[in-house]
Amino acid sequence: MRKIYLNNTLRSQAKQILLEKVDFTPKKETIPVTAALGRVTAEALFAECSMPSYPASAMDGITVKAQETYGANDQNPLVLTEGKNYLVVDTGDPIPEGFDAVIKIEDVQPIGENQVEIMAPAAPWQHVRPVGEDVVAGEIIVPAFHYLTPPDLGAILAGGKEQIKVLAKPKVTIIPTGDELVTPGTRAKVGEIIEFNGTVIANYLRQWGAEPYLHEIVRDKLRNLKQAVEEALPHSDVVIINAGSSAGREDFTVHVIESMGEVLVHGIATRPGKPTILGIIEGKPVIGLPGYPVSAYLALDWFVKPLIYKYLHLAEPQRPRLKAKLGRRIVSEMGSEEFVRMTVGFINGNYVANPLNRGAGVTMSLVKAHGLLTIPAESLGYEQGEEVEIELLRPEQELKNTLVAVGSHDLTLDLLATALRRIDPRLFLSSSHVGSMGGMMAIKKGEAHLAGVHLFDSQTGEYNIPYLEKYLGGENVILVNLVYRMQGWMVSPGNPLDIRNVRDIVRTRALFINRQKGAGTRLLFDYLLQQEGISTSEILGYHREEYSHLNVAAAVAAGTAQVGLGILSAARAYHLDFVPVGEERYDLLMTRDFYHSSLGQTLLQVIKDPVFQQEVETLGGYSMRDAGKVMYGYV
Amino acid sequence: MRKIYLNNTLRSQAKQILLEKVDFTPKKETIPVTAALGRVTAEALFAECSMPSYPASAMDGITVKAQETYGANDQNPLVLTEGKNYLVVDTGDPIPEGFDAVIKIEDVQPIGENQVEIMAPAAPWQHVRPVGEDVVAGEIIVPAFHYLTPPDLGAILAGGKEQIKVLAKPKVTIIPTGDELVTPGTRAKVGEIIEFNGTVIANYLRQWGAEPYLHEIVRDKLRNLKQAVEEALPHSDVVIINAGSSAGREDFTVHVIESMGEVLVHGIATRPGKPTILGIIEGKPVIGLPGYPVSAYLALDWFVKPLIYKYLHLAEPQRPRLKAKLGRRIVSEMGSEEFVRMTVGFINGNYVANPLNRGAGVTMSLVKAHGLLTIPAESLGYEQGEEVEIELLRPEQELKNTLVAVGSHDLTLDLLATALRRIDPRLFLSSSHVGSMGGMMAIKKGEAHLAGVHLFDSQTGEYNIPYLEKYLGGENVILVNLVYRMQGWMVSPGNPLDIRNVRDIVRTRALFINRQKGAGTRLLFDYLLQQEGISTSEILGYHREEYSHLNVAAAVAAGTAQVGLGILSAARAYHLDFVPVGEERYDLLMTRDFYHSSLGQTLLQVIKDPVFQQEVETLGGYSMRDAGKVMYGYV
Repeated sequence: MRKIYLNNTLRSQAKQILLEKVDFTPKKETIPVTAALGRVTAEALFAECSMPSYPASAMDGITVKAQETYGANDQNPLVLTEGKNYLVVDTGDPIPEGFDAVIKIEDVQPIGENQVEIMAPAAPWQHVRPVGEDVVAGEIIVPAFHYLTPPDLGAILAGGKEQIKVLAKPKVTIIPTGDELVTPGTRAKVGEIIEFNGTVIANYLRQWGAEPYLHEIVRDKLRNLKQAVEEALPHSDVVIINAGSSAGREDFTVHVIESMGEVLVHGIATRPGKPTILGIIEGKPVIGLPGYPVSAYLALDWFVKPLIYKYLHLAEPQRPRLKAKLGRRIVSEMGSEEFVRMTVGFINGNYVANPLNRGAGVTMSLVKAHGLLTIPAESLGYEQGEEVEIELLRPEQELKNTLVAVGSHDLTLDLLATALRRIDPRLFLSSSHVGSMGGMMAIKKGEAHLAGVHLFDSQTGEYNIPYLEKYLGGENVILVNLVYRMQGWMVSPGNPLDIRNVRDIVRTRALFINRQKGAGTRLLFDYLLQQEGISTSEILGYHREEYSHLNVAAAVAAGTAQVGLGILSAARAYHLDFVPVGEERYDLLMTRDFYHSSLGQTLLQVIKDPVFQQEVETLGGYSMRDAGKVMYGYV
Repeated sequence: MRKIYLNNTLRSQAKQILLEKVDFTPKKETIPVTAALGRVTAEALFAECSMPSYPASAMDGITVKAQETYGANDQNPLVLTEGKNYLVVDTGDPIPEGFDAVIKIEDVQPIGENQVEIMAPAAPWQHVRPVGEDVVAGEIIVPAFHYLTPPDLGAILAGGKEQIKVLAKPKVTIIPTGDELVTPGTRAKVGEIIEFNGTVIANYLRQWGAEPYLHEIVRDKLRNLKQAVEEALPHSDVVIINAGSSAGREDFTVHVIESMGEVLVHGIATRPGKPTILGIIEGKPVIGLPGYPVSAYLALDWFVKPLIYKYLHLAEPQRPRLKAKLGRRIVSEMGSEEFVRMTVGFINGNYVANPLNRGAGVTMSLVKAHGLLTIPAESLGYEQGEEVEIELLRPEQELKNTLVAVGSHDLTLDLLATALRRIDPRLFLSSSHVGSMGGMMAIKKGEAHLAGVHLFDSQTGEYNIPYLEKYLGGENVILVNLVYRMQGWMVSPGNPLDIRNVRDIVRTRALFINRQKGAGTRLLFDYLLQQEGISTSEILGYHREEYSHLNVAAAVAAGTAQVGLGILSAARAYHLDFVPVGEERYDLLMTRDFYHSSLGQTLLQVIKDPVFQQEVETLGGYSMRDAGKVMYGYV
């Protein structure tokens, strides 16, 4: 087994090394103006003709000879004769020779077939558009290296040009490589992964103005990869190899670049994204991107995006930044810069940011992210409540209209997202699964608008309220019911171990999969154990945690666990058998202020919407008999 | 002659009337995920399979059975045998049944062909990606009515979907109408206008997510226009008729809509854009846009853009706003809201905004605009120095990197724009022509970075410096030479009136065209008159003003004037004869602070660049012998 270690080049330094080494000579092409939106001019464009190209009437009215009108006033209206003193003109009509002014129709009094009366003189050239008022021949319309917008295209056409020279779009070949990859549309078998990075990379490139070409999947063989790069180079300005960029026994990218050109950087001091390769072959940049989706997209942004903008001779657009209060502590390792995907909510007039799953393999963290937090290499992270700067991935306008739900996971929240957008397209739902207790604390600390909670109190037999009173003092909060739902044992089809209760789990030594601490479902499991006097150490897998009902169901379905506790809809999604344990109440906790806000009232409207309720009940195991009912708190 | 008056409906009210009346049922279509960038989901998308779909190694290393490793530590390394205790795995490889943890390659010591040593135990499931870590089957990926970004596409593919249902793009037919219109690429004759609005409208629509169809030009006949609308309706969601929206004798749009459906609004209390028609035929919006380009694009933005976003069930994006100090007073009429195109510069740490040409026909004002200022109906305008709010049409980042030139016009400034971008793609040049005196005042008031000035002082025979000392006290400013240039009489080819000097203009009663007050060229003309003792009243057309050399040349070329004073390059652009009057000095005035700023130093670098100098001298009539030389001021 070979051991190659990656370097730890600083990200900024790596970028500089790459950009200094690459010297593009952009190709130019001539295209119709009508198809030039978003393209970049290759030369300054000067108007070839004037618009208007003749003195034109700026109004509907009559054109006159100004000097013949000088005597006219209120007391002495002047009579003009058509053909002799005036001609009728519409906006845009040419002013014939000899005429030099226009009087607008509203100021003209018809007094016969061919005669009109005017009450005021016309100044020379009044209401006449001079030649070139819009665009004058010889004038610059746009300089070279200009990004073309719709009005630019209008002015260029007005200036008499129909074809223009623009910079060609940089051509980027993306080579996906990996023995495990299968094309989208294939049902992936064990050991197979759907190749989706290529599509994401291609679409980012498209947004930046490049022309991507997605190569077919190349198997992990040095020879194959080398051949693919050789073929791609002649018709590419940049080549991207996705995966195989690390230092494992099947990571060939670095060897391919080394054998054909020069490796400039292998390994950067940033997470995710460390195993990135920056190389150059025949003067063309060849970039090895990591295989993990998040690492790949971040490295693409850091190194390929500047190349595209350099080629197009445009400034790289900067993302807006925003200061936010950190909702949860973030710990980071020293020595390596880290990028954390964050959600950002606007709660009680403050921006609050919370970290999403930090795994480099979690594409959903990018789907859900509102922004990025950079933790410098020399930092150990940030404390809860600290002010941090977030680089926004979405418009601030969207953040202001995002309902932030932090708490227990339930599938009905997923349906709520669509129901909200159906009622008001300005609204978004951001939902993070941190368990009921986490959700309650988030409301207390002002980090969320609402929290899904289902906390069973064994002493009172009541849901949620005893916890509210204990941890939140019960003040200024409103608890609204969303659903009742069925919890139960999720087991393989046919329930091979015949699990009916916790005693069966112990008896059969079944491999259990638990939920994270603070989850209502975990508290329920602990309660069931306690009732039977069973210790947690008797449960195999008690310490193995997942963050949602679906992930628990997925583990049971995959056979890495034999039983888990969760909701019927999750079991159904995986065609698992479901042994009901009991119905529980799932409420939404919110502050009184939020309850009365317009966002809060819209939420209530959605919860009571029969269409939404119908959709929820179709999932199975849900009752909406109290949906929208206030369970606690003074409204 | 008919007289129809337009209404004065408030813009906000007109929008509300339209949106309330229109009830779209968006069409849906199924498309490949790979082609879905920027499309809008028609339904919530749930993952159909998990990614990974099997427990996968998260590292390159070995997979082990955790319970077999418990004894290992520094003092007691544990020897494992391949096949029995471990298997070699790469990142992404499946974890075979019976194994439940991964040890990374860096922590494994090979000790023989098939044996390794480990120094620490493995925890169960360490470095194993659980099923669904990235995307878990059953999980919502994006809700309905979601605008798709690159990572969304990745997650959807990862979730096992290859085709998805999206909202169809709304189809918009644009019908250009006007007897004077000719298609782009035609050399427009007198009375003809190139139809370019259609291209601008189509490209705005494309940016907003619609699918535009640009109809061929329809002549101004009620019957033709009606037929075009009838044909367009079945395959359109919105129909736009461009021009003919006012109340003139050839304005048929209102009659067509009236006869086929309902006119909701005709005329809005906003300038430009007043003659706009909002109508509805067979439940579909039919919009009559004004013919003047600026009016058309603004009305499109106010009324058609919200329709597109309504169809796509998305929130209309808001443009960023910025507070700026007003550089010049703006007077507006009461009773009508007004939109003014503005340039915005970042001068000495302040944003300064200045109005561009307010004519509704001036497309170039939109090309040059950085933002829009709205003057409410009840306002008479704003005073110089007042703080106003500007709705930005370009990123703030661009404004910060824009060199603002306000002063005399010279064609070399046009070349400078390209030369700047060639050296640094982050830089832009915004240049307004207000004459030398206006430029000098702009520097004094901190409204511009530099001003082109060529002010001849008849008492000293010197350029610029006497004026600086008089008006600016000569302090804290630097005067840098840009060019020497030839001024002269611009006359028709062959110089039919044989004009050699101002006496010839008086003698031949030639129609003169002047420059605006404060222009250096006008001061030069006044000086020539004064030398000969000629009064301005002896010059026909003395009061007719144009704002640039090119516009003066255009008037002479069009025959609406017979002589003008201007520079050789402008005469050349119009193939006019040129009778030299003399060489003059054209300098750039700037503050000392700006001179020493990085923007200022880049400017000097460009001015001294031989490529730029070559380009200028090719224009003709220019000498760059002192280009970049400091003519006045302490550096």
